[in-house]
Amino acid sequence: MAKAPVLTPQAEDFPRWYQDVINKAELADNGPVRGTMVIRPYGYALWERMQAEVDRRIKDAGAQNAYFPLFIPESYLKREADHVEGFSPELAVVTHAGGQELAEPFVVRPTSETVIGEFMAKWVQSHRDLPLLLNQWANVVRWELRPRVFLRTTEFLWQEGHTVHATYEDARVYAERILHDVYEDFMVNVLAMPVLVGRKTAKERFAGAINTTTCEAMMGDGKALQMGTSHELGQNFAKAFNIQYTDADGVLQHGWTTSWGVSTRMMGGLIMAHGDDAGLRVPPRLAAVQCVVLALRDEGGVVERARQLADELKAAGVRVELDVKTEVSFGRRATSWELKGVPVRLELGPRDLAEDNVTMVQRIAGTKEPVALGGIAATVAASLDAQQEHLLAEATERRDARTAEVATLDEAAEAAATGWAIVPWSVVGDEGEAKLADSKLTVRCLRRADGTVPASPDEPDLVAIIGRSY
Amino acid sequence: MAKAPVLTPQAEDFPRWYQDVINKAELADNGPVRGTMVIRPYGYALWERMQAEVDRRIKDAGAQNAYFPLFIPESYLKREADHVEGFSPELAVVTHAGGQELAEPFVVRPTSETVIGEFMAKWVQSHRDLPLLLNQWANVVRWELRPRVFLRTTEFLWQEGHTVHATYEDARVYAERILHDVYEDFMVNVLAMPVLVGRKTAKERFAGAINTTTCEAMMGDGKALQMGTSHELGQNFAKAFNIQYTDADGVLQHGWTTSWGVSTRMMGGLIMAHGDDAGLRVPPRLAAVQCVVLALRDEGGVVERARQLADELKAAGVRVELDVKTEVSFGRRATSWELKGVPVRLELGPRDLAEDNVTMVQRIAGTKEPVALGGIAATVAASLDAQQEHLLAEATERRDARTAEVATLDEAAEAAATGWAIVPWSVVGDEGEAKLADSKLTVRCLRRADGTVPASPDEPDLVAIIGRSY
Repeated sequence: MAKAPVLTPQAEDFPRWYQDVINKAELADNGPVRGTMVIRPYGYALWERMQAEVDRRIKDAGAQNAYFPLFIPESYLKREADHVEGFSPELAVVTHAGGQELAEPFVVRPTSETVIGEFMAKWVQSHRDLPLLLNQWANVVRWELRPRVFLRTTEFLWQEGHTVHATYEDARVYAERILHDVYEDFMVNVLAMPVLVGRKTAKERFAGAINTTTCEAMMGDGKALQMGTSHELGQNFAKAFNIQYTDADGVLQHGWTTSWGVSTRMMGGLIMAHGDDAGLRVPPRLAAVQCVVLALRDEGGVVERARQLADELKAAGVRVELDVKTEVSFGRRATSWELKGVPVRLELGPRDLAEDNVTMVQRIAGTKEPVALGGIAATVAASLDAQQEHLLAEATERRDARTAEVATLDEAAEAAATGWAIVPWSVVGDEGEAKLADSKLTVRCLRRADGTVPASPDEPDLVAIIGRSY
Repeated sequence: MAKAPVLTPQAEDFPRWYQDVINKAELADNGPVRGTMVIRPYGYALWERMQAEVDRRIKDAGAQNAYFPLFIPESYLKREADHVEGFSPELAVVTHAGGQELAEPFVVRPTSETVIGEFMAKWVQSHRDLPLLLNQWANVVRWELRPRVFLRTTEFLWQEGHTVHATYEDARVYAERILHDVYEDFMVNVLAMPVLVGRKTAKERFAGAINTTTCEAMMGDGKALQMGTSHELGQNFAKAFNIQYTDADGVLQHGWTTSWGVSTRMMGGLIMAHGDDAGLRVPPRLAAVQCVVLALRDEGGVVERARQLADELKAAGVRVELDVKTEVSFGRRATSWELKGVPVRLELGPRDLAEDNVTMVQRIAGTKEPVALGGIAATVAASLDAQQEHLLAEATERRDARTAEVATLDEAAEAAATGWAIVPWSVVGDEGEAKLADSKLTVRCLRRADGTVPASPDEPDLVAIIGRSY
């Protein structure tokens, strides 16, 4: 009889496979309050790596981190009309504190847009204070009716950038810089996810924005996941919050603001973009554990040699973990590391040692072969580089194979049943977009024919990317 | 007429000086909901440096980061009797969410003790799962009646470690390791704060703990600030949350747990331990900006040379900032960096440049002198090292000068009016402790005569450190 698979196969039930990976790879658990999640150490280590990589890019783009309060007066949300309409149904409200009913209830931040707007107004006085470039790493709360771990949770972790600029053009350029230099660069080069960047339609725009740009990734089942967005808010928030500055001529002007964010949702994207029937596959540049050294059993100096090997790799800059839990069966441990998607496994047993070898298993490339212990650091480094490339190439191939260029709305709907459709925006339009919604299809983004991001939805020859989405 | 000081002098009004530094050094603002705070970029950068240094030490101690939900069912807090009693008056309660009244309200975490207990019970099965060493960086909420920025805020940021061990002894040793290797080491060697470590009395213990150990620092006004605590929780939480494991003999046992934390309160400690009438003084090892290069004016290639200088220092590993805002008066900029407590200022003007010099101002050592541009990286590195030592020595001297060894309770009360008293615990006892409380004095901690931490409050020859506190 064949061994039962550890996970539900993707082809059988993709959502269930997703949940299985999260459980078995020990990424997360459901929290006690509906829709909340517990991010377990292995999952959190991946999130910390995402944070570090995104944070570095944000700082390179000149923004500074700050921290704003969790609690926001209800009145703040009401100042920008579209904004409150967008968030009202999702709010969690604190009515009691310190043993008493509060005179004025407050909400748990669904985003810090409004409270940051309030303080930007205070800090910005002169054109010399601009641009003001802020970022915050925080938890936010949006009440979810149909929660799913990492993808839609009542509480999630994210970064939210908020900036003020003197001109429309400066704001536009900065929002674009974040889209490309922070998000796209991180997603393509670290997450190995070939995201498409584009412009959201008016219908899909952020509440209060004049332009929302997005990074869209294709998941293993052909659906789209919005991985991150960058918004131009025009002067809407500046007017609602009185963010004004005195220009060089002494004239009072409203600022132009932007906001942009990525969240723990990217964890869901990572799982669904790269995972297979054996579990997660983590891109080497992201991996919290790039290589695990496993001692097969405690015999003939194997444990001691495994320890040395791990030290050698660590000294060479590899993020390595040592597994010498030889009281647990080797098969069980190997399966667990396979599930966790660690890119390189070095399995060391007495026979390997006798031959001055170690067995190298490449999780992404899918190979298993003996390699020489001499020069192992270089071997592992080369494998990490090659597997990073491999993963990006594979995801790009899948995306391209499941994307069809079509000419009509009907053809688009057909193609989007299994992947993405590229269709001229002129044949879709607002009306076509509404019609697609009936089949649960959305315009993921608008792009120019050359793949760049349009400055306006009214540019000629734009294409729309149509797909099902998470 | 003398220039009005930028800050209220410490000697005139210490609490007001504290608030002035926070405002003028742009560390934080009050948030819109009472008792909350906005941590501004310069303040947050210091907190990020604290996080990085503490996090590295926590990971070296073998603990892993994870994340648990913000919202906790009310019922969880009621499982451990002392715990709920300790926190009930401070809770913020969410009663409405998603546009509806909730069937069961939940609280915003005042600590994650209980929710982490719940999951530890799930994850711990066998002695092989132990020790389980977890840590979380998060925001927590405790309703404060008399809030003060960084010291007592309704929402604050912290790390909370939670561990399960197989034996009392293992738990005790781990709590002690955190106290010394993480907290004391960080505070003494990075924050340059000569904290006293000791054991809390039964009265001052954490709700639900069998032992609380603490790091106590002396502030500029002679008061004590509790900078961090490490608790042994015995089997209290393990029993309340059913954290059980099967031992090597197959017998079911309750685990032994610990918890430990430091928070944004340390920011308040940093300000009050090292600040002077000119502002903050940041220890070089902590500093987000260790050195600022200021161009006096835009003349004779000064700006360009300042830029090169900053690049040279950056390449040498110094955390450097460039200030070439020559449209703002030099005096104003110099005062601002002085307020922010940046350890080294390099002021570059045309005359310095002509002499191949730069003016080096040492914020902590309090010197101002020309130094050669050649070999500047080594000069700055030496200054950073020397000023780090200087700051610790100064704080140690002050602490020792304001600490008196006394023999009676009355003498202790007198000494504690301006600093700390060391008095035999045998002359204080529970009764004396209650009496001291009438004069707003507390036993900060109990120590052995040799300065080590007692294993029991009943050991002979213990001394009590008595002081006023924040």
